[in-house]
Amino acid sequence: MTAPNISMRQLIEGLGAQMAEALKVSVMRPPADRKPFRGVAVLGMGGSGIGGAVLADMVRATSPMPVQAVSDQVLPGWVDADCLVVASSYSGNTEETLAALKEAELRGCTLAAVTSGGALGARADEGGWPVVQMPGGNPPRSQFGRSFLGLCALLHAFEVLSDASWEALKRGVAQLDGPSCAERGEALAQAVEGKKVYLYGDTPMRSLLTRWRQQLNENSKLLANVEVFPEMNHNELVGWESGNEACVAVLLRTPDDHARTQLRMDITAKVFQDQGADVIVVEPDGDTRWARLLDAVWVGDWMSLVLAERADVDPVDIRFIDHLKNTLSSHA
Amino acid sequence: MTAPNISMRQLIEGLGAQMAEALKVSVMRPPADRKPFRGVAVLGMGGSGIGGAVLADMVRATSPMPVQAVSDQVLPGWVDADCLVVASSYSGNTEETLAALKEAELRGCTLAAVTSGGALGARADEGGWPVVQMPGGNPPRSQFGRSFLGLCALLHAFEVLSDASWEALKRGVAQLDGPSCAERGEALAQAVEGKKVYLYGDTPMRSLLTRWRQQLNENSKLLANVEVFPEMNHNELVGWESGNEACVAVLLRTPDDHARTQLRMDITAKVFQDQGADVIVVEPDGDTRWARLLDAVWVGDWMSLVLAERADVDPVDIRFIDHLKNTLSSHA
Repeated sequence: MTAPNISMRQLIEGLGAQMAEALKVSVMRPPADRKPFRGVAVLGMGGSGIGGAVLADMVRATSPMPVQAVSDQVLPGWVDADCLVVASSYSGNTEETLAALKEAELRGCTLAAVTSGGALGARADEGGWPVVQMPGGNPPRSQFGRSFLGLCALLHAFEVLSDASWEALKRGVAQLDGPSCAERGEALAQAVEGKKVYLYGDTPMRSLLTRWRQQLNENSKLLANVEVFPEMNHNELVGWESGNEACVAVLLRTPDDHARTQLRMDITAKVFQDQGADVIVVEPDGDTRWARLLDAVWVGDWMSLVLAERADVDPVDIRFIDHLKNTLSSHA
Repeated sequence: MTAPNISMRQLIEGLGAQMAEALKVSVMRPPADRKPFRGVAVLGMGGSGIGGAVLADMVRATSPMPVQAVSDQVLPGWVDADCLVVASSYSGNTEETLAALKEAELRGCTLAAVTSGGALGARADEGGWPVVQMPGGNPPRSQFGRSFLGLCALLHAFEVLSDASWEALKRGVAQLDGPSCAERGEALAQAVEGKKVYLYGDTPMRSLLTRWRQQLNENSKLLANVEVFPEMNHNELVGWESGNEACVAVLLRTPDDHARTQLRMDITAKVFQDQGADVIVVEPDGDTRWARLLDAVWVGDWMSLVLAERADVDPVDIRFIDHLKNTLSSHA
């Protein structure tokens, strides 16, 4: 499913440049006479879906319309002709995304695409939809810069993402410090190596932590756990009575975290430590939420790569997924 | 934080009767002249929040308006005066729920409550909001029957939940088989005991699996992992390259699962087994989705209780949460 001779290290090293390049990608302007949307759904699975989830988390507190990521083959019932539906599939052939998109077409939604081609690219061309066009041939998860910033550019053009957010994103890309991300990612990898990893942050960080988990899954071949504050304080915290020194809690902390949750994190970190677990606090660099988001993505990518290299597993290989897709395609 | 001498076994044994009784709870009828809502938000944390999450999952594919569970202190930006906001807090004093509710009041939302009293009960009385009134004094997680069915009754009265769903729920309660749930829950506990538990199901089952996780957390003092199909096939599956016989995958399977996902589950279960993990398939009883939901909740409750008893831990005790709340309250 992936091209030979791809170096995940080179792809991750190039993430900053990929983001800078993505900012130059031209996105077709949406029709000038459109009505305001009732809501937005961003369809996508895995590495093609996480950008929509991150965007939804980033705008949840402020967007006057629901912006929802859909990582499923079923379209939510409320998505109708007054909604914008963006289908994000790197290959353009993701089964679940195409199924949900088909339903969106039937309902008469305004449509757009983020893709390198495939069936999705063909339908977008045919329909004249706005498209974020990506070069193909790489693992979808390595194209987060292009897919996420492309999605943001698209939603900025549709006036779903504010000018202020878009400017903050552009400044964030310009400020990214590649060597620093690599260094902090490597230190993080060393700190969690050999332990069962539990990733925690404030609620709006859930999708960013999920990106970290997905990279640990696919690049490092590791299982990891994501939960968020304040909800985890009402249940998972008690499960830590059986936590111990085999566990490591990675706590993503930013100045954006709710003041009460900052206090909850202090108290909870102490509980983890009392159980014998290591607690690693990660504080992303950047002067805005958007800048810190991009920094944290890159640090997480490095963590997953270094863990793969230290364990001597191939970060590109995803043979379990290839096996699944091959078996599924024989049952079309 | 909880009354002395509470037996979690008695509370779980009584869940069927609790549900039957909850169906008789009278809910104040909403005003007859109300306008259709733009969307619904159900606020709640932990055991008081999971009912809203389950309801949102159950209606996602069919509801013509977004129904969103909010387990956070921050209200989503899109929730406005055209929305219904239900605050669910068993104690009526949950900090996060009251914070989000305060914002909902400022925005002029239509309001309702599910509570045993506290500050929420007082404000609901003062405002004349529809209230699902619960008896107090028990652990919130033991009151799922009352809080979930009360929420459903409320949303049925507001015409958010359809007559057909409500009737299916009532039939589901009548059909519940207590001894069978206990027996299947005990068998499930024995099958997962001593292993690291990974809970899986189709996307609309996420919140039900989350309920299982929460019960494992709070009653059994265990950590567990929840992910869903088809998304887990795009990332977490690869993490299973490091899975082994110390892991057990619990696969919740129902006739409602998407046909393609049923196939994905077959293939994935084989991958788990090839890694040495046990795979336990759970198929809830019942003739509708709603009946199967209630059955599965009860089975999961039993699983968590039996695991607690076999490990000789107190299923009622939640000292880590008590410690957190006490420390937080000294920083009000």
